Amino acid sequence: MPDPLRLGIAGLGTVGIGVVKIVQAHADLIAARAGRPVVISAVSARDRTKNRDADLSGYAWEVDPVALARRADVDVFVEVMGGSEGAARAATEAAIAAGKDVVTANKALLAHHGQALAESAEAAGRVIRFEAAVAGGIPVIKTLTEGLAGNRITRVMGVMNGTCNYILTRMESAGLPYETVFEEARQLGYLEADPTLDVGGIDAGHKLSLLASIAFGTRVSFDAVELEGIERVSIDDIRLAADMGLKIKLLGVAQMTGRGLEQRMSPCLVPADSPLGQLPGGTNMVVLEGDSVGQIVLRGAGAGQGPTASAVMGDVIDLARGVRMPTFGRPATTLDAAIAAKATAPAEHYLRMTLQDKPGALAKIATVLGESGISINRMRQYGHADATAPVLIVTHKTTRDSIDRALAGFAATGVMVGEPVALRIEPV
Amino acid sequence: MPDPLRLGIAGLGTVGIGVVKIVQAHADLIAARAGRPVVISAVSARDRTKNRDADLSGYAWEVDPVALARRADVDVFVEVMGGSEGAARAATEAAIAAGKDVVTANKALLAHHGQALAESAEAAGRVIRFEAAVAGGIPVIKTLTEGLAGNRITRVMGVMNGTCNYILTRMESAGLPYETVFEEARQLGYLEADPTLDVGGIDAGHKLSLLASIAFGTRVSFDAVELEGIERVSIDDIRLAADMGLKIKLLGVAQMTGRGLEQRMSPCLVPADSPLGQLPGGTNMVVLEGDSVGQIVLRGAGAGQGPTASAVMGDVIDLARGVRMPTFGRPATTLDAAIAAKATAPAEHYLRMTLQDKPGALAKIATVLGESGISINRMRQYGHADATAPVLIVTHKTTRDSIDRALAGFAATGVMVGEPVALRIEPV
Repeated sequence: MPDPLRLGIAGLGTVGIGVVKIVQAHADLIAARAGRPVVISAVSARDRTKNRDADLSGYAWEVDPVALARRADVDVFVEVMGGSEGAARAATEAAIAAGKDVVTANKALLAHHGQALAESAEAAGRVIRFEAAVAGGIPVIKTLTEGLAGNRITRVMGVMNGTCNYILTRMESAGLPYETVFEEARQLGYLEADPTLDVGGIDAGHKLSLLASIAFGTRVSFDAVELEGIERVSIDDIRLAADMGLKIKLLGVAQMTGRGLEQRMSPCLVPADSPLGQLPGGTNMVVLEGDSVGQIVLRGAGAGQGPTASAVMGDVIDLARGVRMPTFGRPATTLDAAIAAKATAPAEHYLRMTLQDKPGALAKIATVLGESGISINRMRQYGHADATAPVLIVTHKTTRDSIDRALAGFAATGVMVGEPVALRIEPV
Repeated sequence: MPDPLRLGIAGLGTVGIGVVKIVQAHADLIAARAGRPVVISAVSARDRTKNRDADLSGYAWEVDPVALARRADVDVFVEVMGGSEGAARAATEAAIAAGKDVVTANKALLAHHGQALAESAEAAGRVIRFEAAVAGGIPVIKTLTEGLAGNRITRVMGVMNGTCNYILTRMESAGLPYETVFEEARQLGYLEADPTLDVGGIDAGHKLSLLASIAFGTRVSFDAVELEGIERVSIDDIRLAADMGLKIKLLGVAQMTGRGLEQRMSPCLVPADSPLGQLPGGTNMVVLEGDSVGQIVLRGAGAGQGPTASAVMGDVIDLARGVRMPTFGRPATTLDAAIAAKATAPAEHYLRMTLQDKPGALAKIATVLGESGISINRMRQYGHADATAPVLIVTHKTTRDSIDRALAGFAATGVMVGEPVALRIEPV
């Protein structure tokens, strides 16, 4: 049996302990599959006294993850601390400089520094793998980088934040407003310390930017992701969408257009009977479309100890088997595909607004739409008891630019009550 | 740029031409991803004069695939001829003997000779990859062998014959009997020359046996797959199942039990609102369950030129990148997990029968069930115009052995009209 592959695990939170548990529980199985043992040499976390639900007595302990990254008895630096800056970044850079391969679950780190890290790793002949950074236990990085490598990828879509999907699904099933379900999710411990990371779409946007780089050969460009969170999704919209056979999902979409890569992370409407529409709370789904393969749908747990540790271990076992390839599927220095300044891919849009119930109000709205170059596919005016009229419009395909022009025009009509809502209907 | 990886493609049917098209259309993209060019040196098919929808003029031509397999200018032998014996087997053996790696789409070959081929390839330091052999474009071999390598796999399920899924789905949506839809499928060209391969579950059983070997560390054991085709599924059963919120699918299930690996390929009932239940027409779905990852669902096109060629090219690009591992995810000589003589994992079962409408008939059936150790979960007797009574029973969890005992007992009661139907309700 060849030499063991020796891990240094930085971060002993949920995921780190999950990795320890798998290495301990499945030592024989992993050795059989990897062709060599996988062992843990050392671990790192600040507080050594904390009770961690795993026997760590056999491992060296480093308080400083940078010291862990430089240990001579570590072949692979497993970074499961999180955070785009500070210790996670310093230790990852130190690991590469010290000639270690890296397995990381850190989407924020790669979304912000992935290009620089990949370039330095590749210059040093080192490998960075990050299956656990995107969609938890779903092997989507592997599927995209390896399984579909013969395809020109045409679109990548995903529901990649289980908390947002839980909130939207629960709003619908229980008929509760956003604020109530948000508070429930907080009490259940589903939200990040900074909930904007979840409900603002930032966490999911990080993941989308990583998938987009692999799919389309661009540098990771999180700053170019058009982000819109779920904070403004109302129970009214969820109900009206359901009436039309649609569901609201926080959906990430990346696609290549004539103007370059477009990336959006926003609440979108999808058919209720599509795989995305049928996705229940807490779960993740990624849809990959390629010119040869057609549409591949992957579904599974997007977070949690077991699923995330499973993804880390898939990467570790790949390294033990000698699988080596560039971080984003081709040399980082060749990632040169164009990135669009603004997403312009057209789609149908859902518009909901409340009008003052007086003659000519609807005509004014229709005029604004026409002047914005938007034609109406379907329109419904709902019954109402007071002096306001709820109106729902589904447009034909149009761009977000045109929608924004129309929204500005609506405001100038003087017939609107409150703010209109505009949601993209993503064709799936 | 390193040396190109040189392919020899044996078989120029739909899949072979699909591979040629991808290599030609995406040469630059593949070279960027693989780190080296992928080229075709030579091809093989019997009839050189046939019009094949691709320019083959740049490639050497071998009538004999064995000669192709031995060519000095071939690094990877791509076997897309099909058939478990004859030319496909001889040429694959010749390729391994000549020191070539092999990429194959041939499920029958591997289901029957996979163990011997893997052993000889591994002894020679060669690699056999077969993503295209199972579920077309869905990268399920890669997901199971690599992505989930840190998991003890607990169950593998799949709808892996698109033709059967088309037939069952179409029967339901159009309300047509099996024979009519079978004939439609034949006229649409969906069926193999020997349709038993499809509707008898043999093709899907081949695929299941390959997944089971990887998942559970057994030798490929197609002969141990308990096979039941869809020929006896009636429109009545499809309707009654729908009434109970269930769908009938030709479902492959492999799971490890205390008695060893169990493999079944049979019409099963699954919840209509589960991913398997929602799977439309010609599509494939594989469900993988692991102790850490939980449940992963993969969905996509299970056949067709593009999807199958995509899977072949994923394997080819892996080889170009230097990815090498044993055929079934661990050395073939170590595949020693036990295989059960007979599937005994219990499940609820659906029983449909027609009884003579006379006093005591139902009591006799209930007595037989009790004597077979089967308890009743739900029972319905349907209205009827003649002197027969359609009865539907859902049992509590029981084994197929007990069901078979009960079926024998029913026959002895003298109150049955025709043959009863028994279908497993697979918990998903």
